[in-house]
Amino acid sequence: MEPFELTATAALRALHDGTLTAEALTRSCLGRIADREPAVRAFVFLDAALAIGQAREVDKACGKGALHGMPIGIKDMIDTADMPTTHNSPIYQGHRPGQDAACVAISRAEGAVIMGKTDTLEFAAGGRRARTSNPEDETRTPGGSSSGSAAAVAAGMVPLAYGTQTGGSTIRPASFCGAYAMKPTHGVVSTQGFKRYSHTLDTIGWYARAPEDLALPARAFRLWGMEEAPAPKPLAALRIAVVEGPNWTRAEDSARQALHLAADRLRRAGARVEPLALPPPFDSITAAQRTIMRSEGRGAFLAEYLLHHAKLHAEFRDTVENKTGIAARDLVAAHDLAAECRRLLDALFPELDAVLTPSAIGEAPVGLQNNGDPVFNAMWTLLHVPCIAIPCHRGPNGMPVGVQIVGPRYGDAALLAVAQAIGPVIDAGAG
Amino acid sequence: MEPFELTATAALRALHDGTLTAEALTRSCLGRIADREPAVRAFVFLDAALAIGQAREVDKACGKGALHGMPIGIKDMIDTADMPTTHNSPIYQGHRPGQDAACVAISRAEGAVIMGKTDTLEFAAGGRRARTSNPEDETRTPGGSSSGSAAAVAAGMVPLAYGTQTGGSTIRPASFCGAYAMKPTHGVVSTQGFKRYSHTLDTIGWYARAPEDLALPARAFRLWGMEEAPAPKPLAALRIAVVEGPNWTRAEDSARQALHLAADRLRRAGARVEPLALPPPFDSITAAQRTIMRSEGRGAFLAEYLLHHAKLHAEFRDTVENKTGIAARDLVAAHDLAAECRRLLDALFPELDAVLTPSAIGEAPVGLQNNGDPVFNAMWTLLHVPCIAIPCHRGPNGMPVGVQIVGPRYGDAALLAVAQAIGPVIDAGAG
Repeated sequence: MEPFELTATAALRALHDGTLTAEALTRSCLGRIADREPAVRAFVFLDAALAIGQAREVDKACGKGALHGMPIGIKDMIDTADMPTTHNSPIYQGHRPGQDAACVAISRAEGAVIMGKTDTLEFAAGGRRARTSNPEDETRTPGGSSSGSAAAVAAGMVPLAYGTQTGGSTIRPASFCGAYAMKPTHGVVSTQGFKRYSHTLDTIGWYARAPEDLALPARAFRLWGMEEAPAPKPLAALRIAVVEGPNWTRAEDSARQALHLAADRLRRAGARVEPLALPPPFDSITAAQRTIMRSEGRGAFLAEYLLHHAKLHAEFRDTVENKTGIAARDLVAAHDLAAECRRLLDALFPELDAVLTPSAIGEAPVGLQNNGDPVFNAMWTLLHVPCIAIPCHRGPNGMPVGVQIVGPRYGDAALLAVAQAIGPVIDAGAG
Repeated sequence: MEPFELTATAALRALHDGTLTAEALTRSCLGRIADREPAVRAFVFLDAALAIGQAREVDKACGKGALHGMPIGIKDMIDTADMPTTHNSPIYQGHRPGQDAACVAISRAEGAVIMGKTDTLEFAAGGRRARTSNPEDETRTPGGSSSGSAAAVAAGMVPLAYGTQTGGSTIRPASFCGAYAMKPTHGVVSTQGFKRYSHTLDTIGWYARAPEDLALPARAFRLWGMEEAPAPKPLAALRIAVVEGPNWTRAEDSARQALHLAADRLRRAGARVEPLALPPPFDSITAAQRTIMRSEGRGAFLAEYLLHHAKLHAEFRDTVENKTGIAARDLVAAHDLAAECRRLLDALFPELDAVLTPSAIGEAPVGLQNNGDPVFNAMWTLLHVPCIAIPCHRGPNGMPVGVQIVGPRYGDAALLAVAQAIGPVIDAGAG
């Protein structure tokens, strides 16, 4: 087995044992990138010498952090001190912020090798699409906006990569590419140094190829409860609620099948799996997410609107001009509805260990323009709850279709333990 | 009258008429700074040539923006492309972010002259104090954390300055220095490019010497409703609720007098002024603000904690280590209580035009170490509502003591109109 094929957890173990060096792992990943990048185009910036230099420093370091020697891809709207950050925007071509975003700085402090910058939708929001292809089918999108990070991990180029989620930008691409991903509880990991879209929604997320790998960044970022590292419960002790949710009619057959398959596999493995209908306030929660996202986008892109009008994609100019005509009372209602639904959802726990729900409407669409619909992600982002994407089966075109599990706010550590227990059961391709 | 003595509104009018140039106003402010800075120490970075150069560019520009020719002081935790940003932290001495924060970029686009960087508490949060003195009494604090911005405006050095508020960092210093200030609704002005402390709370704010001046940045930042610019209501049509609030027992006599005086003056001027008792959920709202601020501080200072441990003030290390032992359930309860109180408060409007409430517990304390207590500000910051500080009278030591008015979320434009109507009535020093 080549080092690039190891899960992050297996690689970390070998790095701690001394049977693998950060340099060897980084070189192996660079080799894999050289093979796959012409087809996948996950990276917009990659400097092999820079990555190897970092790996050598890590190998010389005394301590071994939570991400010791891990090559990590960084979505190109997150600032990096030693690489450009372009936001896939003509305004920021060649832009060098000269400073690491908090999540990058923390990762370096924990021993990570910052591998390169991965392609993204313009400002992780809309406008220009990433050039990245789905590693499973070059003619299809990996999803967006964290296109390059999802594809890089799924293609084996890096064991971990960071994305962000404001609507469905982390979890949906994981479903499309057959990767695992985590969007933690909102507001715990600092968003310092990444381009803001909506402060109520913007959340960092990360990709991996095994459920246990998702705990590595969670530990580095000190998510709530990670210091106790809850042990995985036996499957028979797990109580899972299957939530079709207010957008179920939008699910294609392959997404419906994924949810049913995942539920069946869990039941057969001994878990208590029951359907759960969300109460009526949830019917409007998807619209509330859009209202808040667009309203906060007004302020987020105002500087670019004023200073670089012609270079700012029309979608963002429309946002700043409030073309959809959102009124202040709509925004108040959206915030208040979100608060009510957060309370209602949390009240379901601890009778439950997790909610099981779709992660995308179906397989990855053909072409790179349509990044897929975030309708199964937006509400959870607004609810601020932790979400973990788990691969499940393949659709009619042979493309991956996943599901996601959701926990209560700040229940990240327990949800990671659930993912570790049920990931191998749900994921048909696992083992 | 020297140009530096003009209110921002009067200066803007003269700049639009062509009877004043940005360069002349900037030079006049620089003269005032030269006179007062040795005693006040508001600025940590000031380059006269850089300011004059900007002013000359503004004078040559074709259009005239909302802040045309306005010299503005910027709190030194807000990034500026052409000046250092030190956060008053040993970690960031000489740090040059090389990029403007969104609020600075927007202000430049609207014609502002970025005058210099004003002193702040370390990371606008705690630790090291600003060196700034209260312009009214060198032996006293101007308040914090926006110490330099409040003092610079109160001392006539600049007509406008930007601060931030996470607890009471904008409104309290205004009260201590006898200035006007506005903390707008949370989340409308982008926080991109300033050091985060608590994303739920961090809000930009600004200082001025007249209530109408507060509308200038509000217009530049496109606060909700500013495009319609609501006309001031006649005083007799205003309905004001006097709220002592859950922390009234903490108010010193001078703050109690300020609230009573302000209410009496409004009544005599014809406004309908009635006391209002907040319902019981508000009793815990101040504690909820502390819980959220400290919890979000864990992530905000984690990068500095890991990379610059010894240079990070012990207060921040304690925050990252969660020394106060906040549990996830406390944080959930705090968020849910805040959401409930936001809804309850908003329901009081539109039966009301504004809430009138204390802005500080009393006069500015002696010494630069004690920056004053944010107890009359923290709850409003958490409630996300717009707040405007209005000077009122002088306490037993001759120091200014103000009040504040509060509106519903996104009711910034209407609250500015109220401030314009009632500011001259409440402010004994006005006219």
